[in-house]
Amino acid sequence: MTFPPEPAVHRSAPHRSAAIISQGDELTLGQTLDTNSQWLAQQLLGLGIPPAEHVTLPDDRAAIADAFRRLARRIDLIICSGGLGPTADDLTRHALADAADDTLVEDANALDQIRAWFRSRGREMPELNQVQALRPTRGVSLENKHGTAPGLHVTLRVDGRVCDVYCLPGPPRELAPMWETIVAPALRPARTVRTLALHTIGAGESDIAAAMGDLMHRDAVPLVGTTASGGIVSVRIRYEGDEPAAHADALMARTRDAVRDRVGPYVFAEGPGPVGFKLAEAVVDSLRAHRQHVAVVESCTGGMLGSMLADVPGASDVYVGGWITYSNQMKQREVNVPASLFKESGGDTAPGAVSAHVALAMARGGLDRADVDHCLSITGVAGPAGGTSDKPVGTVWVALASRDDGTRVTSHARRFNMAGDRGSIREWASRSALAMLWHRLAGTDVKLLREVDRVDA
Amino acid sequence: MTFPPEPAVHRSAPHRSAAIISQGDELTLGQTLDTNSQWLAQQLLGLGIPPAEHVTLPDDRAAIADAFRRLARRIDLIICSGGLGPTADDLTRHALADAADDTLVEDANALDQIRAWFRSRGREMPELNQVQALRPTRGVSLENKHGTAPGLHVTLRVDGRVCDVYCLPGPPRELAPMWETIVAPALRPARTVRTLALHTIGAGESDIAAAMGDLMHRDAVPLVGTTASGGIVSVRIRYEGDEPAAHADALMARTRDAVRDRVGPYVFAEGPGPVGFKLAEAVVDSLRAHRQHVAVVESCTGGMLGSMLADVPGASDVYVGGWITYSNQMKQREVNVPASLFKESGGDTAPGAVSAHVALAMARGGLDRADVDHCLSITGVAGPAGGTSDKPVGTVWVALASRDDGTRVTSHARRFNMAGDRGSIREWASRSALAMLWHRLAGTDVKLLREVDRVDA
Repeated sequence: MTFPPEPAVHRSAPHRSAAIISQGDELTLGQTLDTNSQWLAQQLLGLGIPPAEHVTLPDDRAAIADAFRRLARRIDLIICSGGLGPTADDLTRHALADAADDTLVEDANALDQIRAWFRSRGREMPELNQVQALRPTRGVSLENKHGTAPGLHVTLRVDGRVCDVYCLPGPPRELAPMWETIVAPALRPARTVRTLALHTIGAGESDIAAAMGDLMHRDAVPLVGTTASGGIVSVRIRYEGDEPAAHADALMARTRDAVRDRVGPYVFAEGPGPVGFKLAEAVVDSLRAHRQHVAVVESCTGGMLGSMLADVPGASDVYVGGWITYSNQMKQREVNVPASLFKESGGDTAPGAVSAHVALAMARGGLDRADVDHCLSITGVAGPAGGTSDKPVGTVWVALASRDDGTRVTSHARRFNMAGDRGSIREWASRSALAMLWHRLAGTDVKLLREVDRVDA
Repeated sequence: MTFPPEPAVHRSAPHRSAAIISQGDELTLGQTLDTNSQWLAQQLLGLGIPPAEHVTLPDDRAAIADAFRRLARRIDLIICSGGLGPTADDLTRHALADAADDTLVEDANALDQIRAWFRSRGREMPELNQVQALRPTRGVSLENKHGTAPGLHVTLRVDGRVCDVYCLPGPPRELAPMWETIVAPALRPARTVRTLALHTIGAGESDIAAAMGDLMHRDAVPLVGTTASGGIVSVRIRYEGDEPAAHADALMARTRDAVRDRVGPYVFAEGPGPVGFKLAEAVVDSLRAHRQHVAVVESCTGGMLGSMLADVPGASDVYVGGWITYSNQMKQREVNVPASLFKESGGDTAPGAVSAHVALAMARGGLDRADVDHCLSITGVAGPAGGTSDKPVGTVWVALASRDDGTRVTSHARRFNMAGDRGSIREWASRSALAMLWHRLAGTDVKLLREVDRVDA
């Protein structure tokens, strides 16, 4: 005879606390930097379930099962990422079954989904991947629309406490959509939480914070804080408490208005959280509203500015492309920068590749050739080599040429002193170019962060 | 009367295992990304003491003390960072004393050092900082030459096991020198550890794992595992044991050779760890070795491929730039793609912008205009809109045109079915282009991951 399976445990009480587990030898050994834990912590915090602990564990079935049971004794919700791959070192499924005193069974639906995933890419499912369809008998497989690893949901009962466990695939582009579409909607925070972020470009974090003044007091309700990342300063507004939703919303709106009163001209976007807002999106939206087009001419950024624009869905409405004039020859041949501006042909007194003259010539040349309303250009010293005493690493000229009433061309160039390594300098340069165009379209002519010189032409 | 203090515990056995604790609300809440844990893990691994767990805890005295005691039951060495500042939420000192059943005492030396640190900056020590001189009575203060927070060393005895605990300040520029000058020299690794990673491009993780076969058995020595990230599958080889160094090296070499026997044509780089290796770097190196130059012509990637190349320091030796032909007009005007290939002018039977014809014309046009040895082109449907039944989102053609003996032009195009969102499709497309060039330069003509069609021209 077979025993009837033990019934699944259910949890209906709110989730008041959470823990995050990251799983993989490459993480405990420090070979890969764990960014999932931070992302999940931000999501949980945003929902009003503050994480109380993160744990990173190796590919060790017993250690993972122990951690599930240990945390379930005092925590309401565990979010685990990683260890759901098809290979022998992917042990999360087994560890979860161990922690639940359960065994694994093949989920027919999950297997179909994995097979379909491979089929849609013109491949047969390798036998190895079949193991990914396993789930604890009292657990649930969560569909993965972006990869082969289904997630898992199991409710553990340990020492009389009931804890929800969600296991998600490690790759962020699989983890994030599964979190958003399946896990987050299933959670039950105990308190009212509201978050809002106003994203600014052009001013420094301390300037923005100074303008906030009393709004940033530690006992203000809602709380106001700032975060800076790559030139974008986000003002975060957060309410957490027991007020009913409508009152919380009114408090949030009052603070948002006060923030806009103080730093309005710098605000390019407003959204629920500080994660991943793109300045390029605001630029594309604004160009679309103006029915205008943009082209780019890039030197030290090598295509990054164009790539940021192309990253926005529907960018083709406003972005036609451009030129990567990485070599000086490309600058001359493709966008008609006069050879005399370069030291090779113009001699020692020529302004050189990193100069207002060249940046302006690139932007005007691109505007001409591409037949667009705006053209952005970037030329600079990204390092680590190539710096000189008058043009140290981090010196970047960004120019914007625009056709104002469809015919008259105006242009200006700004010099920035960027800090950081090659990657950060290139990123800052690309973002500063987007900031210049965004402020141009918004009609807000502000001095930008790290701007040290300006030439109008 | 006063009792004589309990004697300090000493540990003379080797350190066979380690755990890492990171401490701070800003970390558990996801407001700051924890990079100390990865750094410490790399240091420990390098010494031969593999970390078995990382824990991130909030500013909660009981939770930190619990973690010290829990880990001390099975781990030989705990490295903790953070929580040693002067404010009320810095609780590591107290938690460590709690875990050791000890009390805190002011360390006269440490207090002198803190006072001297302020004096050397022309300031008096604020009263607030005096608390940083506290240490458990049976503990040792560790001098901090780069800040005000002394470290702490305590040896815990829990359930008869003896565990060394080192608490280090959170700021990396204080933590790293204290680790290097005080902690690392005091550790006693028990085992020999070696790590190596072979990075492959072109094959899927399950194909690579299948080729590994018995090498990936859980009891193989050395251990072999795989990690996949953005199309790059890294084969990790790791020896940990009691063999003398020379024998460990021989075992590593034997396994490395066996891995190369099985997946050699896909290996583009080999290094001590999988951290941050860039395919673009391998391409730039290979081009430099061949004394050849490359240009790019990008449509759906919008500059990303060029940006990946420009991200490599010294890329200007081999990379001249290219064209972002995002619009069809740019494709025609800038790199001479015949208008008849597009449906707008060529009619419904024309191959269209996403086709082998257009990809090949882009690559050949760019090769012509830029006067280089190789030109890569990309055209595809990155989504979310724009897919059709015969060209669904994720359909990407990548072409490579090369001038073989300096004159004869050969070219070929490959069609890929990419998965994921717009960003991933663009990233995969850019990496596949790099992979095509890398394999071309290496003389390994393999079918690439997600490649579904090929046209030689």
